[in-house]
Amino acid sequence: MNTESEPILPSPVLDYLKQLHEAHASLAEGKVATYIPELAKADPDWFGICLVTANGAIYETGDSRQPFTIQSISKPFIYGLALEDNGRDLVQQKVGVEPTGDAFNSISLDPATGRPRNPMINAGAIAAAGLIAGKTPQTRLKRVMETFGLYAGRALCLDEIVCQSESETGHRNRAIGHMLRNFDVLTSDPMPTVELYFKQCSISVTCRDLGVMAATLANRGVNPVTGKQAIRGEYVESVLSVMESCGMYDYAGEWSYKVGMPAKSGVAGGIIAVLPGQLGIGVFSPPLDARGNSVRGIRVCQELSRHLDLHLFNCPSVGKFTIRLKVTAAEFNSSRVRTPAESQILRESGEGIKVYQLQGNLSFTTTEVVVRDVFETAQPVSHLVLDFKRVLSINESACRLLYEVVRKLAELGKPVLFAHADGTPLLRRYMKVKLGRRFEELFRSFEDLDPAMEWCENRLLDASLPRRLMDREPALDRYAIVIIQQLLTHRSYQRGETVIRAGDEAREIFFIKRGNVSVTVSLPSGLQRRLATFSAGMSFGEMAVVDGAPRSARVVADSDLECDLLTIEDVGRLGKTHPGIKIKFLENLCFGFCRKLRKANCQLSVLE
Amino acid sequence: MNTESEPILPSPVLDYLKQLHEAHASLAEGKVATYIPELAKADPDWFGICLVTANGAIYETGDSRQPFTIQSISKPFIYGLALEDNGRDLVQQKVGVEPTGDAFNSISLDPATGRPRNPMINAGAIAAAGLIAGKTPQTRLKRVMETFGLYAGRALCLDEIVCQSESETGHRNRAIGHMLRNFDVLTSDPMPTVELYFKQCSISVTCRDLGVMAATLANRGVNPVTGKQAIRGEYVESVLSVMESCGMYDYAGEWSYKVGMPAKSGVAGGIIAVLPGQLGIGVFSPPLDARGNSVRGIRVCQELSRHLDLHLFNCPSVGKFTIRLKVTAAEFNSSRVRTPAESQILRESGEGIKVYQLQGNLSFTTTEVVVRDVFETAQPVSHLVLDFKRVLSINESACRLLYEVVRKLAELGKPVLFAHADGTPLLRRYMKVKLGRRFEELFRSFEDLDPAMEWCENRLLDASLPRRLMDREPALDRYAIVIIQQLLTHRSYQRGETVIRAGDEAREIFFIKRGNVSVTVSLPSGLQRRLATFSAGMSFGEMAVVDGAPRSARVVADSDLECDLLTIEDVGRLGKTHPGIKIKFLENLCFGFCRKLRKANCQLSVLE
Repeated sequence: MNTESEPILPSPVLDYLKQLHEAHASLAEGKVATYIPELAKADPDWFGICLVTANGAIYETGDSRQPFTIQSISKPFIYGLALEDNGRDLVQQKVGVEPTGDAFNSISLDPATGRPRNPMINAGAIAAAGLIAGKTPQTRLKRVMETFGLYAGRALCLDEIVCQSESETGHRNRAIGHMLRNFDVLTSDPMPTVELYFKQCSISVTCRDLGVMAATLANRGVNPVTGKQAIRGEYVESVLSVMESCGMYDYAGEWSYKVGMPAKSGVAGGIIAVLPGQLGIGVFSPPLDARGNSVRGIRVCQELSRHLDLHLFNCPSVGKFTIRLKVTAAEFNSSRVRTPAESQILRESGEGIKVYQLQGNLSFTTTEVVVRDVFETAQPVSHLVLDFKRVLSINESACRLLYEVVRKLAELGKPVLFAHADGTPLLRRYMKVKLGRRFEELFRSFEDLDPAMEWCENRLLDASLPRRLMDREPALDRYAIVIIQQLLTHRSYQRGETVIRAGDEAREIFFIKRGNVSVTVSLPSGLQRRLATFSAGMSFGEMAVVDGAPRSARVVADSDLECDLLTIEDVGRLGKTHPGIKIKFLENLCFGFCRKLRKANCQLSVLE
Repeated sequence: MNTESEPILPSPVLDYLKQLHEAHASLAEGKVATYIPELAKADPDWFGICLVTANGAIYETGDSRQPFTIQSISKPFIYGLALEDNGRDLVQQKVGVEPTGDAFNSISLDPATGRPRNPMINAGAIAAAGLIAGKTPQTRLKRVMETFGLYAGRALCLDEIVCQSESETGHRNRAIGHMLRNFDVLTSDPMPTVELYFKQCSISVTCRDLGVMAATLANRGVNPVTGKQAIRGEYVESVLSVMESCGMYDYAGEWSYKVGMPAKSGVAGGIIAVLPGQLGIGVFSPPLDARGNSVRGIRVCQELSRHLDLHLFNCPSVGKFTIRLKVTAAEFNSSRVRTPAESQILRESGEGIKVYQLQGNLSFTTTEVVVRDVFETAQPVSHLVLDFKRVLSINESACRLLYEVVRKLAELGKPVLFAHADGTPLLRRYMKVKLGRRFEELFRSFEDLDPAMEWCENRLLDASLPRRLMDREPALDRYAIVIIQQLLTHRSYQRGETVIRAGDEAREIFFIKRGNVSVTVSLPSGLQRRLATFSAGMSFGEMAVVDGAPRSARVVADSDLECDLLTIEDVGRLGKTHPGIKIKFLENLCFGFCRKLRKANCQLSVLE
């Protein structure tokens, strides 16, 4: 909603589609289909363009809301439904997948088996319609309408007049139906199936609908506008394959060469084109060329492909940026605050803990990059952490590669940790099946990178004896300790108790005698994010005391906690009573800040 | 090199290829080609598999180094060379792009024009060979051999015996040559062209070569192993298109359905398959099926496609992660250190400066995501920064969208800044052409995000008057200033002079009276990275003084510089002579550290 005075900027994508529309609106070639009277009534000037991205952005111009009948564009969607109902093997027994190179109205049955050559010609489409599950013609039609509604993202209805017209003039299709029955491709009375075919062709759609339907195929079967699944992802490749090789009849080769997107046209003037993973296009303009394809539709798709570089085979390499970040514990650590001695161990030996932050879609190619990097540099690695926070999807071949990583590193006694793997449940299922009884032991899954890092760091520190190295922090002398101890107030907290609330006025510095605390902030999502964990011998709460700002985060006792508190007033008073001790105290504070600042700067340089 | 005791881990990808090889080695179907005696000598047990990623990783197993003749697999590469020499239009006049659905040895000329239907059948391949530029047969052959060498990444040679055999038995191909001459598809004596065709078919390759050649097509024409361009990227889509629709003859539809990768087979038993942007596959096994395709080759490609999810149309959505990071100057700033007052302005009004850190390949689809986000939220934006540091490639349609962003925001008086755009020279060229005289003014290109941010911040601060808000830093009282001033030593530096060297012992704190300094570190690349810039009224060098560590970075005078220096010894002495002043001084130090720490923590939380 634009409530400000500044105008909303029109999208350059929409601008471009409008120019394209304008440039082709005057194109006068082609003839409106006349084989049924209803189609002949179409206005040859109708012309709509709609582009929908696989992320759900819709750009439409011209007569993009003008209803017309879907006609042959129904074929790939019906084929997809037949695949879902019967599986690939059975469907292939009934309908082939070879292009015929023939015209759109050719019958093209295999002379020996009677199997239609492919599902994009009428015979194959009728055979596919015959494979749709349902006890009665009504239930079958209902399923068809529901499925098409999922693709379009709205309930669609039949154009009854066109449907009747189709039925009255559909002698050729009835002949096909009987031929298919003759060859047992259809196994019962073929007429209800032919009628279903007439109906599927008479579904009323708009150019916008076609764009969304195409984008649903581009988005692996999930309508990108509604988020609903219209077809199982595994069958999308088969639907697009037959569109690619047979969708444009005897123009398929040239279309593939010049446009390079699986497509399907309809005799009412619609065309859909799909760029898998990226976008769908719907164009509508009734005048057709001699091959039965919309003249403006073809021209617009060619221009779109050329101008927007949409050709399927015109794609740069993937995989180069699956690894978003690669760090080790020598340069990047968990938020658990370490003693100077521990920090030194991590700095010196932390390169054995290796973190890969992955991103995007994990497939064979993108995951191979990660696995290769891991294996080529596996020798100094003692712990491998794979952070899935920014992984969008994973497929089975990627799971297999990662399983092999877990298995092979386990053989060398090197643990593999996964952070944020909950977003990709396939990985967990795959690992569970493959790892069997060793699943709990070997599939180490952490909610976040931070606890995964901490787990690795703790293991490294436990293995690094002696832990106690010389700390370089300037120590307070005994007299100073006695003086300061007199000022301290003891306080105990139970596990889970809040020690500091965000927004509180800052009044004290806390010295931990026993137990741990964690500093957390609430994220907009409602989740808590841990900023730091402090343990015995450390202090917290200094910053707010120094700059007087209210407490910026919450501090909670992770365990039963014993603290000594030093108030801001006592610190102030110390300057008057024991200035030398106050100087030591402030020097200590400065030293602590420097350590934290150096660590923060180091982590920043790693992340930038 | 493995010099440690631990074994190098074998890659799971190679393990998998070995299993695949083992599973199909015993497959006894098919017959070795016998139409020329030399081919009949092939061992039917020869069997190699090679997979090469578009990033240049090579996995090979079995007889992957066994030489054999390339045969029909030469056709797509020759077609590509013909396209480079003549352009698409001229080539299409001579050779069509429609599949025939016919068998591999069909002649398939268009009955009217004599134009071969496509370049994957012999007639079309001979026509394509006739289009290769060169004055003499020798120069043409030389170019062919050089081009194939670029694809394979090594010099290839002819198998002279096979070549002679081909020539002796090639009557059918001579007949085709004369037919093509008859239709003026070939315009001079056809025999040298037919001989060139025999030679191209007799090029000796290995399965590994085929894998690399296929990967070169997958990598937009750049050999991923050598980095050399074998064919201009713009023609790769056309080569792959004809492979997709015609590469497997009358098996094309089923191949496309089951394997889903553009492919080409040869009668010596080779097959290549290309998954654009991802990988190439080479398989070699001489026994052929009735269609002339390697039996094991087809089976291996089907299995690879199924197991590794390589089907062309089985791809998840792209574009969702083009925006790596989106921040504003309210939460993330340049390394120029600001006064507390300036920092406050940036915190409060910085959300107008919007930074998009982009990544990956910028195409229409991936860039649309960015443009949409910019335009939907453009209203509060005063400055837009696009950081290209992690952009791998850009194409023209992405340039067009970004140009529109620059143009439209310029109309509203909002500058658009580009950081790291030097890695994508196409963008600069595109902008130069489109922006014309306004190029210098509107295409604001910065080496790095940091100076781009600083430029925006400076503009925002300059516009935000009054600049001087109350600073909350605890001031030193007049007496303290007098005392400390007595301890200071004045020092001047010229512009460009080094003030502090990394590794130096830390002896002083610097107070800037006039001028600016920058703190920089040397990156492994040899470039300097700026960590901070300080200006008059600020101090630097405190940290090393506090913790006694050697200087960690270099400090250089950005301008002529006047500084006051306070030595570590004087600070120490101050505690004895004027403890109250030392306390104030340390409190000031603490306060400054807190500010820096808060800023660092804020930036860290944004980046993580």
